[in-house]
Amino acid sequence: MFGYHRDLFAMWSTRILKLVGIFILSALGLELMAVLLRYNRKKRTKLQEVLFFPSRVTCVYPSLYVESGKCGCKRSHADSSIMRLIRHLLSTRQSLDLCLFSFTDTELSSTVVLLHQRGVRVRVIADSNYMALNGSKIGILRKAGIPVRHDQSRAYMHHKFAVIDKTVLLTGSLNWTSQALLENRENLLITNDEALVKPFLDQFEELWEEYDPTKYNF
Amino acid sequence: MFGYHRDLFAMWSTRILKLVGIFILSALGLELMAVLLRYNRKKRTKLQEVLFFPSRVTCVYPSLYVESGKCGCKRSHADSSIMRLIRHLLSTRQSLDLCLFSFTDTELSSTVVLLHQRGVRVRVIADSNYMALNGSKIGILRKAGIPVRHDQSRAYMHHKFAVIDKTVLLTGSLNWTSQALLENRENLLITNDEALVKPFLDQFEELWEEYDPTKYNF
Repeated sequence: MFGYHRDLFAMWSTRILKLVGIFILSALGLELMAVLLRYNRKKRTKLQEVLFFPSRVTCVYPSLYVESGKCGCKRSHADSSIMRLIRHLLSTRQSLDLCLFSFTDTELSSTVVLLHQRGVRVRVIADSNYMALNGSKIGILRKAGIPVRHDQSRAYMHHKFAVIDKTVLLTGSLNWTSQALLENRENLLITNDEALVKPFLDQFEELWEEYDPTKYNF
Repeated sequence: MFGYHRDLFAMWSTRILKLVGIFILSALGLELMAVLLRYNRKKRTKLQEVLFFPSRVTCVYPSLYVESGKCGCKRSHADSSIMRLIRHLLSTRQSLDLCLFSFTDTELSSTVVLLHQRGVRVRVIADSNYMALNGSKIGILRKAGIPVRHDQSRAYMHHKFAVIDKTVLLTGSLNWTSQALLENRENLLITNDEALVKPFLDQFEELWEEYDPTKYNF
């Protein structure tokens, strides 16, 4: 009789211990998964950078045209705000949406044309007052086959933002001009925080539709 | 003998079960605390807003001068981008750091003077080329007793950002002019994400020192 109870007790103790063990292992497993997921999400959302200008004058052409990242010229090849901006742009794989008041800088327009030649879907929204000014690169972009749309009003399309692959936003005071890059005090905020990127994506699509050339009404 | 073993087994089983129970409860408790902490932190850091302009024309004076938030005028009192901007500014308690290329809007300068009168420590960095243009409010701010500093170069101090209470950043393409607020296409990103606010705070302090009037060197 005691033997039976004892066996029963031992059996249930073992079962309970097993269940508890399974429970603990499951809980730890879930927790580990949660930690990994959070880590992964954090890693994905943690692009938060602010670039300030004027930038140091550096040679950026190696980033564009030389595999090794080095060239023989005598300008500095150190890291600079303009170099970082160009590296971000060169990371584009699928789409680049540009919404720029003023675009006159040669290095940045070379970068955009290069991306277009690589098969990136580039779209540009420009300001109608500034796109035809002396030095504007809008004509060069158009000639390269990049679609450009612009506002039809005397007020300014004053945005200065870019969205890379629908996920990375670059926005700030910086026009894409040599004076802005190399002389002025300017800022450029770079983030892939979806809550900040999405409103700009929506704004781009809204303006892209509004500035459809088949709807011109001068 | 068997009885002794059985008691020993029962005693240890109970102890192990108790330990396991304590372990599980502690783990759950810790997890709950972690969740609450994360929730709290999330709640604190979740100011992420993007305002687009041109804004609807709305009456903003109730926000400034009328306790009830209502007035008898015939303009719209609906929510607008300019209203939201002014509400953010009016939430300032201790300090307002403004770094603005162009500042000509009357409603925004009234807001800043009001904050100064409330005892908020307002500091303004302006562009030397634009601060003396017709319509600039920089003179009015100075006359009200707000300290203003400016660059000493022909290049532009082209920033357009504000930091509220060292914790909330407002930055974008928007100059504080009526044309920007009511006619242009503009953006203003608002965040209290420390990783984005801190670089702007540092930039403000750096420029504030650099533009110290005792260091003028025209």
